[in-house]
Amino acid sequence: MSLIVMKFGGTSVATVERIRVVAQHVKREVDAGHKVAVVVSAMSGVTNQLVAWVKEANELYDPREYDTVVASGEQVTSGLTAIALQKIGVKARSWQGWQIPIKTDAAHGSARMIDIPGNALLASMASGEVAVIAGFQGVEADGERIATLGRGGSDTSAVAIAAALKADLCDIYTDVDGVYTTDPRMVPKAKRMDKISYEEMLEMASLGAKVLQIRSVELAMVQGVRLRVRSSFVAPDQLKPFKLGEHSDVGTFVCDEDEIVEKHVVSGIAYAKDEAKVTLFGIEDKPGVAAAIFGPLAETNINVDMIVQNVSEDGKSTAMTFTVPAADLARSLDVVKAHKSKIGYRELKAATDVVKVSVIGIGMRSHAGVASSMFKALSSKGINIEAISTSEIKISVLISADYTELAVRTLHTLYGLDA
Amino acid sequence: MSLIVMKFGGTSVATVERIRVVAQHVKREVDAGHKVAVVVSAMSGVTNQLVAWVKEANELYDPREYDTVVASGEQVTSGLTAIALQKIGVKARSWQGWQIPIKTDAAHGSARMIDIPGNALLASMASGEVAVIAGFQGVEADGERIATLGRGGSDTSAVAIAAALKADLCDIYTDVDGVYTTDPRMVPKAKRMDKISYEEMLEMASLGAKVLQIRSVELAMVQGVRLRVRSSFVAPDQLKPFKLGEHSDVGTFVCDEDEIVEKHVVSGIAYAKDEAKVTLFGIEDKPGVAAAIFGPLAETNINVDMIVQNVSEDGKSTAMTFTVPAADLARSLDVVKAHKSKIGYRELKAATDVVKVSVIGIGMRSHAGVASSMFKALSSKGINIEAISTSEIKISVLISADYTELAVRTLHTLYGLDA
Repeated sequence: MSLIVMKFGGTSVATVERIRVVAQHVKREVDAGHKVAVVVSAMSGVTNQLVAWVKEANELYDPREYDTVVASGEQVTSGLTAIALQKIGVKARSWQGWQIPIKTDAAHGSARMIDIPGNALLASMASGEVAVIAGFQGVEADGERIATLGRGGSDTSAVAIAAALKADLCDIYTDVDGVYTTDPRMVPKAKRMDKISYEEMLEMASLGAKVLQIRSVELAMVQGVRLRVRSSFVAPDQLKPFKLGEHSDVGTFVCDEDEIVEKHVVSGIAYAKDEAKVTLFGIEDKPGVAAAIFGPLAETNINVDMIVQNVSEDGKSTAMTFTVPAADLARSLDVVKAHKSKIGYRELKAATDVVKVSVIGIGMRSHAGVASSMFKALSSKGINIEAISTSEIKISVLISADYTELAVRTLHTLYGLDA
Repeated sequence: MSLIVMKFGGTSVATVERIRVVAQHVKREVDAGHKVAVVVSAMSGVTNQLVAWVKEANELYDPREYDTVVASGEQVTSGLTAIALQKIGVKARSWQGWQIPIKTDAAHGSARMIDIPGNALLASMASGEVAVIAGFQGVEADGERIATLGRGGSDTSAVAIAAALKADLCDIYTDVDGVYTTDPRMVPKAKRMDKISYEEMLEMASLGAKVLQIRSVELAMVQGVRLRVRSSFVAPDQLKPFKLGEHSDVGTFVCDEDEIVEKHVVSGIAYAKDEAKVTLFGIEDKPGVAAAIFGPLAETNINVDMIVQNVSEDGKSTAMTFTVPAADLARSLDVVKAHKSKIGYRELKAATDVVKVSVIGIGMRSHAGVASSMFKALSSKGINIEAISTSEIKISVLISADYTELAVRTLHTLYGLDA
């Protein structure tokens, strides 16, 4: 008998009919003898409606009231899911954040959990009840105001609850059946991975493979919570119940790299289209210029990603290229222009027809030559690299958006990922 | 400076736009220096949607989970109303039942409030905040499960909160501007009453003038809470702020009869169309027959209203007529038929084309002849009375539904109620 946490996102609980399917997935695990805590999101679309109402009432809303309004979405799903479980003979009760209590800090709207006492939940589960927990919400530790964790916070709730309950597994049910080596819509040969390390998943998620909330993966890594991503749209009887030590069921495990025996040099290829490129020409090649550019951007909370400074040819004048989220481009240009005299550039250019393509793999740590093979392969297809950034387990290049598909397919084949 | 409770029903908070109007009504009272607690219902239609989801998940739902789901409607409105108040510069915060806490018994779905500690609310209001309270909900005293008071419970919440806070007034804002001498859609000459006693209001409400929840009026009477019914659809600046001792503003006061100086013999005419008539012919005129009929009906939770037993002509056989809610007619006939041998009737007839018309007035207590003038007036119009029931302050007659309008108009004129 194991203790598992099963998390179901908005599309998995979009209607009462879908909630019935969720109940069947839960029943499968209960019937196998497991203790189960379920974490649910709001029915898909509900949170957007609630947020729209709040903004209609006041664009500058009080975040404590925002939380009170928005947390109601998960409250509804938790009750309906408990009822659907009872309907098929599974004992269940719903839990709101304040009932557990999931204590958070006071940062309403994007609160962080600071403590989850597991005793009430464990006592309920020991009595044979499935605990159906409203995700995304908690209660401010120093008061009794409802707090929410920010959009997508239900994944993070699930991981934190799994840690508090010392669960054997945290299953994240969503509308895809796992994590793929790259976007299957772009590359039909993309394969579902059986396992991926936390570190790789973090790079995948932040690079656009939006299966799991980044925060939830970070928390799982820190707390050592084993995650599995799988689909709630598979018929409940087509999946086998969890069995400790068995890893070969449908879905992708996200776990410590020690658990991954066969370490691929490259595990996956990600791409991000929402990047914008800014280039400043004719800046002086002297100390303090970079600070003059990036200081004001940081103060404006603009997240600069890649930075490339060209080598100066004449020792005096050079060019600086950096990328920002496309949504922040206009603001970024305003900031740069406002500081023109301090920065001292001649010309400013910006482009949004760029894409960042990344290859990710923990095997890179012990394997040289990944970057050079990547550059060579792209070059052989006539793809020009505009910027490069690297981490221990990732290499990213900025290229023209026209070549996205060609680049991703080329690299997917290059690193032996084609199914 | 007074402390007032302002309650807004579902149509008054149906949209964010309507909630903005509610905020203006509240601001008017705050600007006049009053401390204000606001009680809100769910946005109209929301509760029906939530109930439908619960029933779709399981017709035989767990009432505790029902409460968790359904209470979310008022939670949303309370947050949105607080935000709308803040938007126009009024300090406000929302309160859920469990935060106050409004302690209830364990009868989920139709819980009764057992204690409302006013200290947290009063402290918040003393700091200058308007307390925006989610109506209809509380928290089970022996646990921490959300409980709801049953449909329409927000009126009752408001009255209980007014009692706990020792409020000077409980204003019930709705989509009509007060209590009328009869249904204005039927009788254009119907007048809005300035005042009505609790007792009269109870008779009016239970007889179909559905302005206030019966339970809220009972509670107001017991607790001595002064109520006022008025419309939230009047422009906020068209109403004067509350002033202690002034009773002549727009709306109807519901108060102790001692406060009503000029006691009308008849204050209002009510009618109820959802009655059904059952007649048993050829029953024996002997002890125990009434018990044989009404015992089984009571056990089936069918509420029998009027009962008429004809005088037996031959000392042996007679007829019995009674009324039940039209919705319960089929069940009532089943019960009677199932007990035919025990009751011993010859023939059973039922009709739903009947209406109960009632005249109500505390002045009746000290004024004889109301019944006879009523019967004479109806008779002069050729209206046949099929059954009669009376209380200290009310006389009801059952007549053919065809004559509803004629009867109500005739009586409205007879007792000098025409505007």
